[in-house]
Amino acid sequence: MGEEVRNKQIILKNYVKGFPKESDMILETSTIKLKVPEDCNDAVLAKNLYLSCDPYMRARMTKTEGSYVDSFTPGSAIAGYGVARILDSSNPNFKKGDLVWGLTRWEEYALIKSTQALFKIQHTDVPLSYYTGLLGIPGHTAYVGFYEVCSPKKGETIFISAASGAVGQLVGQFAKLFGCYVVGSAGSKEKVDLLKNKFGFDEAFNYKEEHDLNSALKRYFPSGIDIYFENVGGKMLDAVLLNMRLRGRIAVCGMISQYNLEEPEGVQNLLCVISKRIRMEGFIVSDYYHLYPKFVEMVLPLIKEGKITYVEDLANGLESAPSALIGLFSGRNVGKQVVVVDPE
Amino acid sequence: MGEEVRNKQIILKNYVKGFPKESDMILETSTIKLKVPEDCNDAVLAKNLYLSCDPYMRARMTKTEGSYVDSFTPGSAIAGYGVARILDSSNPNFKKGDLVWGLTRWEEYALIKSTQALFKIQHTDVPLSYYTGLLGIPGHTAYVGFYEVCSPKKGETIFISAASGAVGQLVGQFAKLFGCYVVGSAGSKEKVDLLKNKFGFDEAFNYKEEHDLNSALKRYFPSGIDIYFENVGGKMLDAVLLNMRLRGRIAVCGMISQYNLEEPEGVQNLLCVISKRIRMEGFIVSDYYHLYPKFVEMVLPLIKEGKITYVEDLANGLESAPSALIGLFSGRNVGKQVVVVDPE
Repeated sequence: MGEEVRNKQIILKNYVKGFPKESDMILETSTIKLKVPEDCNDAVLAKNLYLSCDPYMRARMTKTEGSYVDSFTPGSAIAGYGVARILDSSNPNFKKGDLVWGLTRWEEYALIKSTQALFKIQHTDVPLSYYTGLLGIPGHTAYVGFYEVCSPKKGETIFISAASGAVGQLVGQFAKLFGCYVVGSAGSKEKVDLLKNKFGFDEAFNYKEEHDLNSALKRYFPSGIDIYFENVGGKMLDAVLLNMRLRGRIAVCGMISQYNLEEPEGVQNLLCVISKRIRMEGFIVSDYYHLYPKFVEMVLPLIKEGKITYVEDLANGLESAPSALIGLFSGRNVGKQVVVVDPE
Repeated sequence: MGEEVRNKQIILKNYVKGFPKESDMILETSTIKLKVPEDCNDAVLAKNLYLSCDPYMRARMTKTEGSYVDSFTPGSAIAGYGVARILDSSNPNFKKGDLVWGLTRWEEYALIKSTQALFKIQHTDVPLSYYTGLLGIPGHTAYVGFYEVCSPKKGETIFISAASGAVGQLVGQFAKLFGCYVVGSAGSKEKVDLLKNKFGFDEAFNYKEEHDLNSALKRYFPSGIDIYFENVGGKMLDAVLLNMRLRGRIAVCGMISQYNLEEPEGVQNLLCVISKRIRMEGFIVSDYYHLYPKFVEMVLPLIKEGKITYVEDLANGLESAPSALIGLFSGRNVGKQVVVVDPE
């Protein structure tokens, strides 16, 4: 019947308005049998090793209708991406001992009944936590965003906001390898240093130290921006629009500056979309899952040759998950925010 | 040496801020010799027959830098599109008696030294004024906007703002012929009647009578909008964003509601661009001039078979041009605004 063990969980207490707080989530301890129940077909019982903190999760903390992601269920463990080891399985695609990444829940052990978003890990000669970042959703997002949505050409200029984050740091490195001139913005000196010295960006600046974002962009792009990889929205987007070049492209990946506002900021410079013939396109990585194998095939050798590097911010213990998630919205994390539940 | 005649001109007095007024322009009378001067190669001397009033001209009334159109020169006759007859030519491409359409100036007779934007009229079995509209820049704009930028599919839903205008009325008719469900907005009952009864739109509404544009759009598009042909910007764009369907397209042709504002309205619902994977693309017809012959080849038979109709608002006499141009910004015109200088 399987051993019954203690199972710590992070529960969403209620839907959130405005800026989320640690107290919107609560740590509870229940028990779980380490076995898939008899009446559960195609399910797995998994031990979570690493959990991913991602900005899109903020949208799930709100009661929304018609959004591209469902709302979380208050009173239940938060759902999110992670890396796990299969302890028991009634699903022929997974067996005991397998390592997987994909959609799990914020608890030590999870019974995962819906396994469509669970993928067996084939390559274990990289840090397993990378499957929450570089080799997971953020990495794949950077890959399809840059290569499929930005339509880059060698020699073009690209600006990346939130550039040291889980996605941004990779977009910048892909763009450098591709032959672009790459500039990123971030919110601290430490992050700016990372961009320039670790990720090889041509230039980087701390947006918090610029009272005029338009001037800052003009300084780094005297002839304008061909591609903007948009992660923040609001005032930054307004300043970028003024600095785009003719037929520029804006790949809209996220707008983290807007997620906690009751009313979003207004963007005023959309007339530039006409005069500069700008193409602005939103995208979501799940539309591109068919390209994941192609992405891994490209990126694995680059990791092994040291041509791509990845910075993670590791929080220890499931207990640290609420604070780690909320830190994303004040930019406290440096690099991809991961929660280490059990590094085995 | 050529006959010397009186030449009435519409002069821009000064650069304009905010809403333009008739008094920003002045009628002056000078004289002109009806002959190209000896030292002028490749020029033509033309008698203007019809002049076009177009919203983009507002941008030229402001001193701008780096815009896609040059500013007008205060103290000189306003430049714009029109239909003219050649009276004299030092350019081998044009001869006396030819009818042309293209860039001329707001005066009775114009010496046109730069003839790259002047095209010989081949088909005279349609009203000549159509070369300021249906067969000119607005018609070509509607054609490339719909077929090249909107990426339409049969059965899709399309919303067109400023739908009875020079461009909108054609976009709607193209979309109907293509097999789309077509809804337009306009600013009066008369215009709404035109949309439904003359242009064959499926539905139309008067935006001035809707206190909640979001609800109005939901009424006509219960399952959402696949394509938005954007002519107005501001609040309408914000409401449309909320009603777009997954992978919708927004062809940004104009934002007439914003042209006279000192500070543009902020657009708040751009987060929808991500969640709905919207592609928003600005375009300018001059990038597509190579498609003009293809456009004429398509549209001429449609006109002759009565499958496309076109409504013009004719203002009589060059004197009426300032008032006609300004009327565009309060929506006084019904259909394409033309100034009849000399119908011959």
